[in-house]
Amino acid sequence: MRRVSKSVSVVVPFLLSVAGGVTAAPVVGPSFIGFDSDGTSTQRALEQRFDAELKADDLREWMRQLAAEPNQVGSPHDKANAEFVLEKFKEWGWDARIETFSVLYPTLKSHALELVEPTQFSASLTEPPIAGDASSSRADGGLAPYNVFGADGDVTAELVYVNYGMPDDYKELARHGVDVKGKIVITRYGKGWRGLKPKLAYEHGAIGCLIYSDPQDDGYSAGDVYPKGGYRPADGVQRGSVADMTLYPGDPLTPGVGATANAKRLAIADAKTVLKIPVMPISYADATPLLAALGSEVVPRTWRGSLPITYHFGPGPAKVHLRIESEWTRKTIYDVIATMRGAEVPDEWIVRGNHRDGWVFGAWDPLSGHVAMLAEAKAIGALVKQGWKPARTLVYASWDGEEPGLLGSTEWAETHADELKRKAVLYLNSDTNSRGILSAEGSHSLQHLINQVAADVRDPETGVNVRQRLRAKVEVDAQAEGASPEAKRIAKIAESGGDLPIGGLGSGSDYSAFLQHLGIASINIGYQGEDEQAGVYHSNYDTFEHYERFGDPGFVYGVTLSQTAGRIVLRAADAGVLPLRFGDFADTVSEYTDEVHKLAETERAKSETVDRLLDADAFKLAADPTQKSMPPPRDDIVPYIEFAALDNALARLKRSAKAYDDASAGDWKKLSAAQRKDLNALLQGMEQSLLDARGLPNRPWYRHFIYAPGMNTGYGVKTLPGVREAIEERRWDEANRYVVLTARVLDVYSARIDQARQVLSKQ
Amino acid sequence: MRRVSKSVSVVVPFLLSVAGGVTAAPVVGPSFIGFDSDGTSTQRALEQRFDAELKADDLREWMRQLAAEPNQVGSPHDKANAEFVLEKFKEWGWDARIETFSVLYPTLKSHALELVEPTQFSASLTEPPIAGDASSSRADGGLAPYNVFGADGDVTAELVYVNYGMPDDYKELARHGVDVKGKIVITRYGKGWRGLKPKLAYEHGAIGCLIYSDPQDDGYSAGDVYPKGGYRPADGVQRGSVADMTLYPGDPLTPGVGATANAKRLAIADAKTVLKIPVMPISYADATPLLAALGSEVVPRTWRGSLPITYHFGPGPAKVHLRIESEWTRKTIYDVIATMRGAEVPDEWIVRGNHRDGWVFGAWDPLSGHVAMLAEAKAIGALVKQGWKPARTLVYASWDGEEPGLLGSTEWAETHADELKRKAVLYLNSDTNSRGILSAEGSHSLQHLINQVAADVRDPETGVNVRQRLRAKVEVDAQAEGASPEAKRIAKIAESGGDLPIGGLGSGSDYSAFLQHLGIASINIGYQGEDEQAGVYHSNYDTFEHYERFGDPGFVYGVTLSQTAGRIVLRAADAGVLPLRFGDFADTVSEYTDEVHKLAETERAKSETVDRLLDADAFKLAADPTQKSMPPPRDDIVPYIEFAALDNALARLKRSAKAYDDASAGDWKKLSAAQRKDLNALLQGMEQSLLDARGLPNRPWYRHFIYAPGMNTGYGVKTLPGVREAIEERRWDEANRYVVLTARVLDVYSARIDQARQVLSKQ
Repeated sequence: MRRVSKSVSVVVPFLLSVAGGVTAAPVVGPSFIGFDSDGTSTQRALEQRFDAELKADDLREWMRQLAAEPNQVGSPHDKANAEFVLEKFKEWGWDARIETFSVLYPTLKSHALELVEPTQFSASLTEPPIAGDASSSRADGGLAPYNVFGADGDVTAELVYVNYGMPDDYKELARHGVDVKGKIVITRYGKGWRGLKPKLAYEHGAIGCLIYSDPQDDGYSAGDVYPKGGYRPADGVQRGSVADMTLYPGDPLTPGVGATANAKRLAIADAKTVLKIPVMPISYADATPLLAALGSEVVPRTWRGSLPITYHFGPGPAKVHLRIESEWTRKTIYDVIATMRGAEVPDEWIVRGNHRDGWVFGAWDPLSGHVAMLAEAKAIGALVKQGWKPARTLVYASWDGEEPGLLGSTEWAETHADELKRKAVLYLNSDTNSRGILSAEGSHSLQHLINQVAADVRDPETGVNVRQRLRAKVEVDAQAEGASPEAKRIAKIAESGGDLPIGGLGSGSDYSAFLQHLGIASINIGYQGEDEQAGVYHSNYDTFEHYERFGDPGFVYGVTLSQTAGRIVLRAADAGVLPLRFGDFADTVSEYTDEVHKLAETERAKSETVDRLLDADAFKLAADPTQKSMPPPRDDIVPYIEFAALDNALARLKRSAKAYDDASAGDWKKLSAAQRKDLNALLQGMEQSLLDARGLPNRPWYRHFIYAPGMNTGYGVKTLPGVREAIEERRWDEANRYVVLTARVLDVYSARIDQARQVLSKQ
Repeated sequence: MRRVSKSVSVVVPFLLSVAGGVTAAPVVGPSFIGFDSDGTSTQRALEQRFDAELKADDLREWMRQLAAEPNQVGSPHDKANAEFVLEKFKEWGWDARIETFSVLYPTLKSHALELVEPTQFSASLTEPPIAGDASSSRADGGLAPYNVFGADGDVTAELVYVNYGMPDDYKELARHGVDVKGKIVITRYGKGWRGLKPKLAYEHGAIGCLIYSDPQDDGYSAGDVYPKGGYRPADGVQRGSVADMTLYPGDPLTPGVGATANAKRLAIADAKTVLKIPVMPISYADATPLLAALGSEVVPRTWRGSLPITYHFGPGPAKVHLRIESEWTRKTIYDVIATMRGAEVPDEWIVRGNHRDGWVFGAWDPLSGHVAMLAEAKAIGALVKQGWKPARTLVYASWDGEEPGLLGSTEWAETHADELKRKAVLYLNSDTNSRGILSAEGSHSLQHLINQVAADVRDPETGVNVRQRLRAKVEVDAQAEGASPEAKRIAKIAESGGDLPIGGLGSGSDYSAFLQHLGIASINIGYQGEDEQAGVYHSNYDTFEHYERFGDPGFVYGVTLSQTAGRIVLRAADAGVLPLRFGDFADTVSEYTDEVHKLAETERAKSETVDRLLDADAFKLAADPTQKSMPPPRDDIVPYIEFAALDNALARLKRSAKAYDDASAGDWKKLSAAQRKDLNALLQGMEQSLLDARGLPNRPWYRHFIYAPGMNTGYGVKTLPGVREAIEERRWDEANRYVVLTARVLDVYSARIDQARQVLSKQ
């Protein structure tokens, strides 16, 4: 479900350590993290055998099969695919089963959208077939465009254009004296998570919300449209969930517990993640007459899209009628869970997942990643048949119901929470995958593992290893006009030859419950950046035909993803000591701490400036009096935040991390079996010490105090979220409180690192 | 002719000194620069009588009259307007005459533009009447859209889209393997001066050039189009000169000398400022089918406009046929020169000008400024009739032929060069004027004069003085998201209460010959920023009707311009000591010197990075191999520039300036008449010491070593141009040479300041 935007040229910060290594799989080199040199040689040989089992043709055929029919939740093909995948796992020697959950999933019954004033227009709300794409012409079993978990409703009101519908956009509307109360808003996709747009509209008093794809972000302005190119055609619509996942993901009726048959459920009216107003996604063909009919002031420059019209705020004279009626029943979702039992430490689990459900055909999202995962499972099955066994247990998961709100992974993780907390070592996720550059985000204790793996995987387009290619990309992008300071910082690290930092995880795919609710160290990886997915994301055109032309012709990057994820799985499974390093985490928290310090200073300076300008009447004097224009509201004075506890905790973390990393560089083979068991037990649950059971402000489901999706940005990660969001939202007492709470989890983490270091020192 | 772009939110740096002054015309306050306290009181009373003579209705009626018919060079109404203005000056008591020059001015005979492959389309090349705008429907005497001083030609070739057609755009084309050799390019207006676009296209081998107005910059994306709003309608075309004014402005056949009847003239073929390829301006209605027919790769994000198409580079499959035929004859231009002889020092001249010729009707450009100038002349005439006389001589000039290339002002300045160098104290220019905020640029020795004047002029919309309004604007803009470091620097100065810096002068209106060729201290002022001129700039729709709706309803900002320019003229005319201050100039040169130091450092760092990435093959590795993409060329090593001479000259300038400013703050009334005469004589020619007779590299006409229009940017000013452009263009020997030459003119300037200070010290 995660949408990789091509609008903004951001390379997910990542990777690259050893300089100059050009060969894809060097035969000599440093030991793998968690392995001694003998173990490294053995592992390297195993990985080469693993690679030999990966076949691009398998991926192609599996995608063709899985994407043959619409496969969203509730569709016959969704269930059929679960059974197909189950059979495959079994065929490959895995212990596999289907686990079902019963989740709220409203299904659209009927809907309509009309412009009723000043002229008449009925929106088509359909995605016609595309020449040359047989899938797109299937009439039966398809899925009308809609936003799942918006409310039903029948409303008629004046229309207001609210740009991306994010918090700053409402500030801008206020500056122009535009109020959305009692209106229907039209917002464009982009900049923040889809579900925030109707939520913020509702909070500002709107009674309905339309979301359209502007061709500037996603359409002819981005590139040639389908079928000439891969970009979104005029009638393409982006479906998607608008459940309020910033509160909690998963079934809206069972927060925190698995949606099993007998689970205690909320009434729908009490489910806080179900929105309160009707929401409808529309194409730019349907949006154009509505936007063109808006009057009043012209919007600011940054609000203008690429439609051939002048964009106005409204409200009116455009008035629209919006009607949505859904069937609010529960549906069954089908997770396929496959296990390969560990020969030595069966109670340490390496969990690997990718979702299987799409919007309509879902070739890109999620099947491109899913078929890579299947290829790993098949290869592992082959290795086992050849006599190898993983030391730890492998758990492979084909998730259902990710699109409506991470349903399959969340309900499974909630159901098995206790066991996962005791056993899971890491969770490795992927989703959409295509031609391009490695992207990796996750827990920073795993940063070195990822860097090492990336050095051993060959990029199919250039022949160098994928971390070398990423290094090149990071450095080239950072020297381009307008590169961000952060991009330049990462490029400096790339230049110095160190491991490149990975990004933190926000939300948008199935790692959320594992990382942010249970505290299991997680990674999300994929290849991206040379594709044209934007054009068919969550539309009727996300087909096998489109993917094979524009996503990954030859399915070579599917194989590359298998090689990358497979290495992470195999190394985590067989490492003598779990492959964690803490200096990387300490360095990252140090960056985050600097950022929140600076944020407080910047907010203070900004408020002081605004207040001074208000005192001087400057906003009024600077404004064009013929335009409606209000000065910004007066800010309260930004106090100095009591950061000392956090700064002290960081200092301790740095010392503890360094001490462990130094000690673990020694030869841990001298450890007794019991000591090694103690050490791994400490490492297995390490990330859980970054949780606080009270959770984050107003969203107790989110318990990780280092990484969370933003309350007001959605998918994007907020790091040190308790502190950062309190400052951003100007809740000063909360900021001071969360400094202390965040410092406390870091201290617990440091103490556990110290314990692990003591075990190492005893050898 | 100067186009004020609304695309970019730049406030021309400027103004504001005394904090908190709210009254528009304070009765008490510091003495005016150049006056003692008694003189200040007298002058203030004079200015109030001057204001009383200004009538908005006069401005409206003069504009209605002057804009009644097309009035470009060669039109009957151009001559009639000269005679009308002459009569007015005479009626008001001025000694007025018409001075004529005979200039090359090609007139369009016929032209055509067609798409010939892959489909057929004939461009309309016409601007149809607009409902409600009677002027726009005049069929006789109009002017077809064309670019004057492009070549004649009849060419057919594949089309290539080159974005804004600036140097960086050609670098980007090279990175994508696109060559314009033998092609016709299509470029959009904006970012750099119009005339550079075909010149650079020619230098890269193109055989023809189309320039269109993209609606993103200038059309429906900017605002509602005419007649609903004021912005450019689909058929509107921007005419304009493409003479290569970066070499020299004025008549292409008489560089450096007046185009009098018997002047020695170049053959047309030898005139370097006449372009070598045909150029045609077109509307976005005509451009759309051409751009839509282009193929090959999609252009980068920043190259995409707001047309509802996918923008491609080409070349082809679009092929166009372009034909232009002109009558290459000389035409007469009519400058009206009016003199009011000074009673005390008739040989010190205050020169004030605004052009009178437009493209078609020219209501905004230039008549809005021209009628304000006429109002000043009428008011001054009335003061003289009441018995007042200026101490110095006033010279008011209504320039012809500015649009084709500053013809009227340049030929006049060249003709009277010797006398002007001996007598002219300053040149004050204006051009288009409308509702909004004061914009002022010029010689920095006049910065304090402008600041003082702006504190005494009331803004009609807010009631505060215009410098207070500008201060508010500067500060408000600087706190907005994305404000430039320069905008923030200026805002800091505004906040501190100091005079706000004015910008330097590049080119684009009639000050060029005075400042950059003769070294006469110059100012350009106007009000702007709340208008919608962009929409009709240089088109058939720049009419009285449009101006009265969107430019300055009530003509109140016309009166405000008269008050501002009038005060500058009257104070310069009557000041006991010429109103120059040198600390402001020294501070400004100090900023410029910092900038060229930093430029060299930045260029060095950039080259080192590019070369390092080339060594690592990073550009190839980072690129998508399915797209054409070349690495950038390898840069030579940037040497350290020998800046010491400039740094030393700056240090001396600061000392000399401070000593003069301190001394002039004393009571110079003790000076004898002879001393005062000596002092003013030194001050009168002061700016000329910033010239070097050898001129700038490859363009000897430009002799000012502090300010010049950019060779590769056009209108925009390049400060310390000899040094700065040499570094930008990577001509290292030249950079070192021009450091020394620039230091030398600064030393001469400092020495002359020292002489002036010595006169003051003798009192």
